[in-house]
Amino acid sequence: MAGNSFGNIFRVTTWGESHGKAVGCVIDGCPAGLEINEGIIQKELDRRRPGGRLASKRKEEDKVEILSGVFEGKSLGTPISMLIWNKDVDSKPYEEIKDLFRPGHADFTYWVKFGIRDWRGGGRASARETAARVAAGAIAKHLLAKFGVKVGGFAREIGGVVCNTDGMSFEEIVENAEKSDVRCPDEDAARLMEEKILEARREGDSVGGVVEVIVKNPPAGLGEPVFMKLDAYLAYAVMGIPAVKGVEIGAGFRAARMKGSENNDPIIIKDGQIRFESNNAGGILGGISNGEDIIVRAAVKPTPSISKPQRTVNYRKMAEEEIIVRGRHDPCIVPRAVPVVEAMVAIVIADAMMMQGLIPRFL
Amino acid sequence: MAGNSFGNIFRVTTWGESHGKAVGCVIDGCPAGLEINEGIIQKELDRRRPGGRLASKRKEEDKVEILSGVFEGKSLGTPISMLIWNKDVDSKPYEEIKDLFRPGHADFTYWVKFGIRDWRGGGRASARETAARVAAGAIAKHLLAKFGVKVGGFAREIGGVVCNTDGMSFEEIVENAEKSDVRCPDEDAARLMEEKILEARREGDSVGGVVEVIVKNPPAGLGEPVFMKLDAYLAYAVMGIPAVKGVEIGAGFRAARMKGSENNDPIIIKDGQIRFESNNAGGILGGISNGEDIIVRAAVKPTPSISKPQRTVNYRKMAEEEIIVRGRHDPCIVPRAVPVVEAMVAIVIADAMMMQGLIPRFL
Amino acid sequence: MAGNSFGNIFRVTTWGESHGKAVGCVIDGCPAGLEINEGIIQKELDRRRPGGRLASKRKEEDKVEILSGVFEGKSLGTPISMLIWNKDVDSKPYEEIKDLFRPGHADFTYWVKFGIRDWRGGGRASARETAARVAAGAIAKHLLAKFGVKVGGFAREIGGVVCNTDGMSFEEIVENAEKSDVRCPDEDAARLMEEKILEARREGDSVGGVVEVIVKNPPAGLGEPVFMKLDAYLAYAVMGIPAVKGVEIGAGFRAARMKGSENNDPIIIKDGQIRFESNNAGGILGGISNGEDIIVRAAVKPTPSISKPQRTVNYRKMAEEEIIVRGRHDPCIVPRAVPVVEAMVAIVIADAMMMQGLIPRFL
Amino acid sequence: MAGNSFGNIFRVTTWGESHGKAVGCVIDGCPAGLEINEGIIQKELDRRRPGGRLASKRKEEDKVEILSGVFEGKSLGTPISMLIWNKDVDSKPYEEIKDLFRPGHADFTYWVKFGIRDWRGGGRASARETAARVAAGAIAKHLLAKFGVKVGGFAREIGGVVCNTDGMSFEEIVENAEKSDVRCPDEDAARLMEEKILEARREGDSVGGVVEVIVKNPPAGLGEPVFMKLDAYLAYAVMGIPAVKGVEIGAGFRAARMKGSENNDPIIIKDGQIRFESNNAGGILGGISNGEDIIVRAAVKPTPSISKPQRTVNYRKMAEEEIIVRGRHDPCIVPRAVPVVEAMVAIVIADAMMMQGLIPRFL
Repeated sequence: MAGNSFGNIFRVTTWGESHGKAVGCVIDGCPAGLEINEGIIQKELDRRRPGGRLASKRKEEDKVEILSGVFEGKSLGTPISMLIWNKDVDSKPYEEIKDLFRPGHADFTYWVKFGIRDWRGGGRASARETAARVAAGAIAKHLLAKFGVKVGGFAREIGGVVCNTDGMSFEEIVENAEKSDVRCPDEDAARLMEEKILEARREGDSVGGVVEVIVKNPPAGLGEPVFMKLDAYLAYAVMGIPAVKGVEIGAGFRAARMKGSENNDPIIIKDGQIRFESNNAGGILGGISNGEDIIVRAAVKPTPSISKPQRTVNYRKMAEEEIIVRGRHDPCIVPRAVPVVEAMVAIVIADAMMMQGLIPRFL
Repeated sequence: MAGNSFGNIFRVTTWGESHGKAVGCVIDGCPAGLEINEGIIQKELDRRRPGGRLASKRKEEDKVEILSGVFEGKSLGTPISMLIWNKDVDSKPYEEIKDLFRPGHADFTYWVKFGIRDWRGGGRASARETAARVAAGAIAKHLLAKFGVKVGGFAREIGGVVCNTDGMSFEEIVENAEKSDVRCPDEDAARLMEEKILEARREGDSVGGVVEVIVKNPPAGLGEPVFMKLDAYLAYAVMGIPAVKGVEIGAGFRAARMKGSENNDPIIIKDGQIRFESNNAGGILGGISNGEDIIVRAAVKPTPSISKPQRTVNYRKMAEEEIIVRGRHDPCIVPRAVPVVEAMVAIVIADAMMMQGLIPRFL
Repeated sequence: MAGNSFGNIFRVTTWGESHGKAVGCVIDGCPAGLEINEGIIQKELDRRRPGGRLASKRKEEDKVEILSGVFEGKSLGTPISMLIWNKDVDSKPYEEIKDLFRPGHADFTYWVKFGIRDWRGGGRASARETAARVAAGAIAKHLLAKFGVKVGGFAREIGGVVCNTDGMSFEEIVENAEKSDVRCPDEDAARLMEEKILEARREGDSVGGVVEVIVKNPPAGLGEPVFMKLDAYLAYAVMGIPAVKGVEIGAGFRAARMKGSENNDPIIIKDGQIRFESNNAGGILGGISNGEDIIVRAAVKPTPSISKPQRTVNYRKMAEEEIIVRGRHDPCIVPRAVPVVEAMVAIVIADAMMMQGLIPRFL
Repeated sequence: MAGNSFGNIFRVTTWGESHGKAVGCVIDGCPAGLEINEGIIQKELDRRRPGGRLASKRKEEDKVEILSGVFEGKSLGTPISMLIWNKDVDSKPYEEIKDLFRPGHADFTYWVKFGIRDWRGGGRASARETAARVAAGAIAKHLLAKFGVKVGGFAREIGGVVCNTDGMSFEEIVENAEKSDVRCPDEDAARLMEEKILEARREGDSVGGVVEVIVKNPPAGLGEPVFMKLDAYLAYAVMGIPAVKGVEIGAGFRAARMKGSENNDPIIIKDGQIRFESNNAGGILGGISNGEDIIVRAAVKPTPSISKPQRTVNYRKMAEEEIIVRGRHDPCIVPRAVPVVEAMVAIVIADAMMMQGLIPRFL
């Protein structure tokens, strides 16, 4: 149970509604002795923050405050509580449609599940909740970096435009992606993606895409057979991000169309180490990491909030009505989803390393 | 932790190695008062059992024995322990290659993780472990049926051949699939799929595919925000099945290429109930079931055991070698994977219904 | 894992150090639709608050702030985050002894476990952490009251003085206890207890005692065999409170000296219901509640912080030294421990009722 | 949830009814590479087995069979499944009273909880279930021994007779206890205890007592603040054993009557190590082990099955009736409870050591 907590040893609990007082998280199980300051976290929050030509107009400062678990710049091994106040909240546009269920949103399902409705900006189902995940993920990434493991992501596809990263190193991919408004390291594709997004905005519509995240330099041996396999754990983490409708590892759905002789990665010796010549497995075999890069891709659906008129139901009147969703929405959330997927992947890898005994209880 | 357990209230623990004495499972949390007999479970095990023209030659009777939790034909609410003896075990072909890691298998990763190797038929990483899942899933399915919920699956794609189910009802899909050797309800596609499989076998190769599972008539309100969303939970369940490399819900990866106006399912009133006109969401919005059919698809990689020579490493000699995997293997495991995916989906839905309070502690 | 979380369905996570910025908690799994306001919580916090003739001189206002999970006065079913700022913090007296381990405290063990020391007022091991438990427990109590279940406690024993409640009703016990500075409903005993406490203070010493908590009107059927029995769960909850060294249910250790014929509670029919004539079982048989009052007792050790000189070790010098613990400490924490034990018991009962399906997901 | 599982990393699931086919357990999370054979487990089971002058007449061979998780004499890191067939089952005496609830037993509460009754010998609530715990505990003890940690227990008190162990070493206590029919290391007390038991048997009555278990040489640093403190975890483990009504650590309830200056254990340097001069804390401070012996005591109620007539209810007739419990019962279960308490304590310590990273994933 406990749907708002994630992780086994490195365990994150998030809380907060979009238009409530604040959002936040508590990390239980972070090793003691890790240098932590708010800057590390702020950097990642700023990557997720609304803003830019292509994004929503909600202007949140998203300033994180650490309330516990850190003393004299180091983690204590006790829970790290972090808080981000909600400041630029405008519930007005939501009030008008508070009896209507927005198509593609969780309005209807939350109402069925909880018998009550927080109509203010999507409430707990809002993507604003992911700010808390990013804050927790920042600490996971920071912890992983101490052990030489890096997590980076980019927009692999937006609005049907697929990017090409052949020949790019992990570092190039990550750096180039950060320079781009759409978080795509391939400049040509990035330009086309922007066009797709701006076109969708003009039409009052939206587009989706695919986020890819790479774990560079992971240790072999991560993942718990048979149910908490590393790929299963990653799928759980990533499919639980708002708007994600598909997850794949390595060759993924493409593997389903390959022959065994094509898909199997030959095992070789390289620099005196057992390695794999190709990486269709995406770094995971039998649910356990094999030491190669871990590759995860997430299918992100188009933003459900669109200004085109849509058919829906007014639940108080129990009548069909037309809805036009105003509010402040991104025509494409893929670029902002990148740090969120990274955060969830980082938490999984940090937790799996702790489970495997590769990160001690104190540093 | 506890990688060999799955579920929250309806919780399954499996155990057993491919060539050990037996495999089995323990279900904790099944409601009391449910009529249970071995026939219910045997029926599902027989669907997963090796055999048929297209399958491995291991001839396991797979006879299940219930050891606890059932008294006078009814569940007691106490743990249901089930056991299947391993009978037709032949470890000989594995002994020859016990110092080699089979490409595409978990041999290397288990060795790294556990520092020890059970070379007999894949040990715990063998697909034989899924017999225990199917036994547990049979009880979950049986429980769901009491509440009017059905779970059925089929081969959506094999060796690149995609089947078409347009216009078929759930019952037609399921019944037709069961009549087919490849578990495909579309006769034309089924024939082509068989050809692909037999061709792969002739070449000493293998093919993969896509399994689709449908939950018919699920209640709305299932799934726990924000991490244990129903789709996240299903992804966890399904990605943890051996050979699965991708999972999608509803339109899945296709949704990433749609516009918001195309992907959003209009909300309507039908027979006095709030329903959805289309089902791109695959029955899940904001991680909570919306009452429409739940659609899950799993990408299954081609069987890694192929008789073609492959490059690998002998870890005792730390030298590269060629391997030819003999043993008894299916050139395509997709048909046998169908009941396994069904089982995992059924366990998730049963558990989610119990979490939501829709199944009582005793019937 | 996740040592800072407690509960299964009704699940509480606490955070915060004694002299950090704040302490707080997150409740995940509280049913939706419960009327909640800060007054309900403040009332319980005020009962635990330092103050009074017999208590520590730290003057915390302990004002609770609800940050999420409540909208228009009702719970949303989403996490309820609560925060209490630490205001009257004076770390000075602790700085002097920051290289010494206080006997009877967790200074040494936290240092061994985490390799780092938060010497400010006991850090996470401080009893201040229990403010967050009381806040969470207030909501559990409030929820239970909706279902006719009450939780009340008192000081059964202090400094060797045992109180007598024979002939008092639950309501009398609870009301009389609240009127007394030592939370003892028996006026004569209360007077003697106060004397013991004041005597200990004069000597620079401290006394312990026994807290008793009664659950009035609990439903039968709570508790999960075989490990999460209701008594086991209560023992887990109560032994985890700072300073508790023993827990017993019903006749408890006294039962170990009885004969079966004395200890067994006869089963009778009363008002058409199956009931028990006596209650040596303390309301729990075979780990499951039997419908009678649940009786839990906790042995509370004397406050370890005393101003008498004690022998200890300076870990930087690795030398034995004498320590005099100044700070602001209660010579007896039993009265203030009462609401803390009540809080933990209430959380267990609320959680067990939800597990048994006796409290729905929304009210 | 999952009341039939126990532990976090070293996690045990038990199953089986008293008069069902078998009882058993599955251990998930035992490190790989541990030498395991059935003899290790059989030895502990034989200690718990019915028999002897003072015990029940049920004659179970209690022969354990390992079904998985061990290969070539070593643990694989995969689940260890163990099974003990129920052979000497005689449900006859229970059939006569199957509509009556035995006082002091779980008959009534299981019926309320599960709405169904397994009247055969107590079903799941029978002490027979503890055979599976002892099997799992045997492996935990064996694992601990590899790390120099020993777990031993004895009858501290039976029928009001308290034993004296002053001046005895851990080894003497354990060895002397094993030589005694009542598991009491103090010969004089043992004799008196036997008399009390035989007297109770003659009267058709029963007696209870106190089991004490000592963990010798535990590492400091075990236990997870703030809820899963080591003492809380031990209390959970031990209170969940059938018939236990109280648990205490170190001075326990006696501490409640001491002054702080008496109860605090002075901290000293001994052989260059930080140690404690006395051990009122029972090896645990602030919920974390301090390196001294861990002392746990359990209050065991008198066996509820007595042949004296007792008042109870026939639930089919809803009428009060007299019951005489025949069956085969021990007039005192304290001696047989000793290995059960040891088993649970061993599992807790093994799990806590794994959580603290002091036992690796493979040996």
